[in-house]
Amino acid sequence: MTSSVAVSGASGYAGGEILRLLAAHPDVEIRTVTAHSNAGDALIDHQPHLRSLAHLTLQPTTPEVLAGHDIVFLALPHGQSGQYTDALADTPLVIDAGADHRLTSQAAWDAFYGGAFHEPWTYGVPELIVGAGGQKQRERLVGASRIAAPGCNASTVALSLVPGVAAGVIDARDIVSVLAVGPSGAGKSLKTNLLASEILGTANPYAVGGTHRHIPEIQQALTAAGASEARISFTPVLVPMARGILATSTAPIADGVTDAEIRSAWESAYGGETFVHLLPEGQFPRTADVLGANTALVGLAVDRAANRVVVVTAVDNLVKGTAGAAIQSMNIALGLPEATGLTVNGVAP
Amino acid sequence: MTSSVAVSGASGYAGGEILRLLAAHPDVEIRTVTAHSNAGDALIDHQPHLRSLAHLTLQPTTPEVLAGHDIVFLALPHGQSGQYTDALADTPLVIDAGADHRLTSQAAWDAFYGGAFHEPWTYGVPELIVGAGGQKQRERLVGASRIAAPGCNASTVALSLVPGVAAGVIDARDIVSVLAVGPSGAGKSLKTNLLASEILGTANPYAVGGTHRHIPEIQQALTAAGASEARISFTPVLVPMARGILATSTAPIADGVTDAEIRSAWESAYGGETFVHLLPEGQFPRTADVLGANTALVGLAVDRAANRVVVVTAVDNLVKGTAGAAIQSMNIALGLPEATGLTVNGVAP
Amino acid sequence: MTSSVAVSGASGYAGGEILRLLAAHPDVEIRTVTAHSNAGDALIDHQPHLRSLAHLTLQPTTPEVLAGHDIVFLALPHGQSGQYTDALADTPLVIDAGADHRLTSQAAWDAFYGGAFHEPWTYGVPELIVGAGGQKQRERLVGASRIAAPGCNASTVALSLVPGVAAGVIDARDIVSVLAVGPSGAGKSLKTNLLASEILGTANPYAVGGTHRHIPEIQQALTAAGASEARISFTPVLVPMARGILATSTAPIADGVTDAEIRSAWESAYGGETFVHLLPEGQFPRTADVLGANTALVGLAVDRAANRVVVVTAVDNLVKGTAGAAIQSMNIALGLPEATGLTVNGVAP
Amino acid sequence: MTSSVAVSGASGYAGGEILRLLAAHPDVEIRTVTAHSNAGDALIDHQPHLRSLAHLTLQPTTPEVLAGHDIVFLALPHGQSGQYTDALADTPLVIDAGADHRLTSQAAWDAFYGGAFHEPWTYGVPELIVGAGGQKQRERLVGASRIAAPGCNASTVALSLVPGVAAGVIDARDIVSVLAVGPSGAGKSLKTNLLASEILGTANPYAVGGTHRHIPEIQQALTAAGASEARISFTPVLVPMARGILATSTAPIADGVTDAEIRSAWESAYGGETFVHLLPEGQFPRTADVLGANTALVGLAVDRAANRVVVVTAVDNLVKGTAGAAIQSMNIALGLPEATGLTVNGVAP
Repeated sequence: MTSSVAVSGASGYAGGEILRLLAAHPDVEIRTVTAHSNAGDALIDHQPHLRSLAHLTLQPTTPEVLAGHDIVFLALPHGQSGQYTDALADTPLVIDAGADHRLTSQAAWDAFYGGAFHEPWTYGVPELIVGAGGQKQRERLVGASRIAAPGCNASTVALSLVPGVAAGVIDARDIVSVLAVGPSGAGKSLKTNLLASEILGTANPYAVGGTHRHIPEIQQALTAAGASEARISFTPVLVPMARGILATSTAPIADGVTDAEIRSAWESAYGGETFVHLLPEGQFPRTADVLGANTALVGLAVDRAANRVVVVTAVDNLVKGTAGAAIQSMNIALGLPEATGLTVNGVAP
Repeated sequence: MTSSVAVSGASGYAGGEILRLLAAHPDVEIRTVTAHSNAGDALIDHQPHLRSLAHLTLQPTTPEVLAGHDIVFLALPHGQSGQYTDALADTPLVIDAGADHRLTSQAAWDAFYGGAFHEPWTYGVPELIVGAGGQKQRERLVGASRIAAPGCNASTVALSLVPGVAAGVIDARDIVSVLAVGPSGAGKSLKTNLLASEILGTANPYAVGGTHRHIPEIQQALTAAGASEARISFTPVLVPMARGILATSTAPIADGVTDAEIRSAWESAYGGETFVHLLPEGQFPRTADVLGANTALVGLAVDRAANRVVVVTAVDNLVKGTAGAAIQSMNIALGLPEATGLTVNGVAP
Repeated sequence: MTSSVAVSGASGYAGGEILRLLAAHPDVEIRTVTAHSNAGDALIDHQPHLRSLAHLTLQPTTPEVLAGHDIVFLALPHGQSGQYTDALADTPLVIDAGADHRLTSQAAWDAFYGGAFHEPWTYGVPELIVGAGGQKQRERLVGASRIAAPGCNASTVALSLVPGVAAGVIDARDIVSVLAVGPSGAGKSLKTNLLASEILGTANPYAVGGTHRHIPEIQQALTAAGASEARISFTPVLVPMARGILATSTAPIADGVTDAEIRSAWESAYGGETFVHLLPEGQFPRTADVLGANTALVGLAVDRAANRVVVVTAVDNLVKGTAGAAIQSMNIALGLPEATGLTVNGVAP
Repeated sequence: MTSSVAVSGASGYAGGEILRLLAAHPDVEIRTVTAHSNAGDALIDHQPHLRSLAHLTLQPTTPEVLAGHDIVFLALPHGQSGQYTDALADTPLVIDAGADHRLTSQAAWDAFYGGAFHEPWTYGVPELIVGAGGQKQRERLVGASRIAAPGCNASTVALSLVPGVAAGVIDARDIVSVLAVGPSGAGKSLKTNLLASEILGTANPYAVGGTHRHIPEIQQALTAAGASEARISFTPVLVPMARGILATSTAPIADGVTDAEIRSAWESAYGGETFVHLLPEGQFPRTADVLGANTALVGLAVDRAANRVVVVTAVDNLVKGTAGAAIQSMNIALGLPEATGLTVNGVAP
């Protein structure tokens, strides 16, 4: 049976990607799309690539418009989701692509976001190990009614390191992650530093020195996987590709573990996964290989001279990092096959 | 008085950049340009941007052709410079843009390069602190007759971290560097992974896990600056910009130092420099801002939560990373004003 | 019932895209993939984005290996397909993505390609009007057993102009087309001018002045649509995007026709098409909007001051330009729904 | 003797490029930089690549601030220059990089711009032939006190075609020009279609169908060169490079002229020029080859099958298209060597 769906923030990049994936999903009907300042426009004026949805008109993002659907996706700037929660009390499934319901720690929220703290929802990264017994977040998503889709950078780093933390083969207290990221992760925002002339032909770091909002989200995932403490030096670098995250993460090797034990941690974590693949030894991923796909590709090296494990992970920030994670989580919540409407193969070159 | 110059490897990227800079240098005359397989062609067929040198023809790269100039630049693949050394014994100044004369340790050479080891020449990064007294490499370049231009990644990381090492405010035993780099650093090589279709729209790591050849060169610079031991996790990532290196380097904060002491180390190292600039607190560089310029821009953050200093440095790999370093060193060696023929301002956007 | 498929040239860009689309097609089984120099390697070593096909190994491209399938795709350099024709005589459906079977005129073949001339196969662009009665190429593809997939530039220009030619509202004797194209159209060839450093940050024309091999293919399509003579000034320009063709084509307005008559020609040609869309007046397409999709977006303007119709068309060269056209044609030939396995929506941004 | 200079619009792209070039000019002193909303900021906050000008502060753009210099550059949106004219009556040399003083025809101004019409100033493209005797615009610039720098697209097309028009070897009544252009030509404007995510990986036409404001400027140049009438189909296409224009222009071959006569027209026009180079037969330019340089590279083909001359011209829109043209014109006006402060060689790759 088809579920009716509303997508807010439908004129933005995250909303557009949710719609692109839903348009290929056999079990949903996109009934309503909403926006703020663009309400009244045809969706296709803002998402000219979504030809199959040319019949849809953007409605205003109000509780009334969003109510009455089987599933609602919120793709709004952080701090805006909360106002809809009460009005959507009767909605069977609400998935927030924003940050409002990701963090379990109010202190972390206050330190990195500020404003009203909202209760945490079920975190939408099914492949993360979340307990000493090796169970995964997937189990918590079964039947969930409120889901927080992850931050794209945060889930990429969490997927990179959680297997090693859970297996005790790396030390989470001195992690360094540097990410090459495309500007679509920053949204369709009119900021000078996001202009094409400022991005083309250049690499540009931001939020340097421990200020990025995805840091507590990573720490939360690593702690859930068993880390007693997680400290991370985190630096994103904007590079000239519209989409994609290539996260290079390193952590100290735990005392006494062998190279085989290290690799085994990731192999056992991801061996059975559809969307997270550990590459063979000596191979490392490119973001092009996951473009448009819900896939995370993970390359692993053990650098004994530096005494660090190096994990390089590629995701499409708008798919596995946001919209794909949301829909994969939706599938699990609804009891559908997990891969419904999602692709494993990237669009390359 | 004008010096006569020969440039080998003139059809490649490093050779082309040396020529671009020399063409704007008032004290040299480009008399000879050489190449291997392209000998006999007009230079401009391979360097169509060098309009002012349209009269030059590529001659074969032989000792005979290179001999008899005041200055010879070697821009050859590593392992090839050595064969010219004897023939150029009478040449007053030889500058090697390749790797053959950079390393002082034969063990390091054997481990990372292999083949015949050549004696180290004076290293061409004038701004590096190279001794306990704070003296700089510049002093050694005065009057030098044999100069090894640096590896572009290596000098970028060395410039990033040497001030902190020399001042004792960071710990060189657990450095992590991740670099966003443009493909021109890999030369004009016909390799599938350097094709445009493989680079456009994607981020692509290589030499992951401690295998990159610039690692011992960085260690050498850090040791020269006073590190008892230097260990580095080093990961370069190809991104879609023709030129540029953005190096994000982190190192543990030394015990007991204050934020002011940390910043002061870089300020005092670079305060008087023409080509290496420490940016104000909270500011970080972009590679576009140094495109075509001999400038290194350095941004510095102290991340107490991660217990790491973060240094982000931008250079143009072909200028400050290679050809500009070579010509700046040439200027010093010859007693010319250090900035002759070099620009501080980048070409942006 | 599922058809067994073999794809030759499977390590290249066209072959890779055929495989990406076939992997999502419910009615085929990819049984065999072949290559020349890469035979013996795992497919995924050359197509790391095709994760779902990680089990396949590249076999040598020989008649014996290709024989015995229901469908064979040839994705080979021009001049190579002919050698397989006899061996595949029993294969129910052969689709050539190369040029060998596109041209009906041996004189045109000799002038632009040379070498042995091969008989023309059914041309794989279903939406082209091919006769005075307005019938389309689609009709000829029903039940076809030998199909020539189009040249990507040629089919883009043909789709741009055929409606106007067929309706007699433009003059085909003085067409000018300039195309912005991505380098993937040139294949995975080790040529200096296709290196990333040569493509990034630059626009680069090639085959200027009437030498491009797609010119006779365009003329053939325009003549089939009713042009008595077709003359075209054709200039492709390489730009820094991996995929995509944006073709700007202009032709003189026929005497006495109104703006409404002009627009009506394209509206009636494409109004019922799934994969070719005429945009509303004043709107023009971007290549990003068709990335990964089998869609051609067409924008139309009538410039009375210049006395020219301007048609701007965007396609993904590897999909609607090559692999998508091949599979759409396959669907028609086999009697499957035409859109099976193909997407209308692009991957943007 | 050094001239004092003020530059308005100094926080934008055109203003920034004027400053980059002036900073390398031996005969000027940059005394004043002005901006509107950014007044009060350090220049370097908005032009982080202009390290040598780090001491300058943006002052408000007012007649009072601009008055009292030897030379004033206006780099303002069109319609804004006029308000400063009276106040700068005593300024020896004023150069407008905007459109206000380019057009001689009020009708053309009204049709394409609107608002108050301003008197035309001396047009700043020295190499254009402007009369039946073959004299060039250069002569008019000697001693000029008011100069209109050209539109970047307009001057590129004018330089492409004027030699052929002046020599009577092409027909100006049916020109077609399609330009691949970088987004910096559109300025540092906060518009959605200029965001990096909208430009990366895509080609995007704009002002299609005869609406672009540079059309009358081209017609004016062609008429000045002798065309009785100039009609042009003009389509710019945004491509993912920060800078650069590659203009492909075609025009019908005049009756009875030979290929040699055609080539001779451009050879004689540009044979003695420093900054405009006709490439040898069969060669065509790339924008990378003129990046940062004041050079226009022109490639020429005669396509007899299409009966059209094809001219492909590459310029850096911010240099030869704007700021370089302004400074070259300034040099001529002041009696300085024409190439002072300007480079011929591009920054490539």
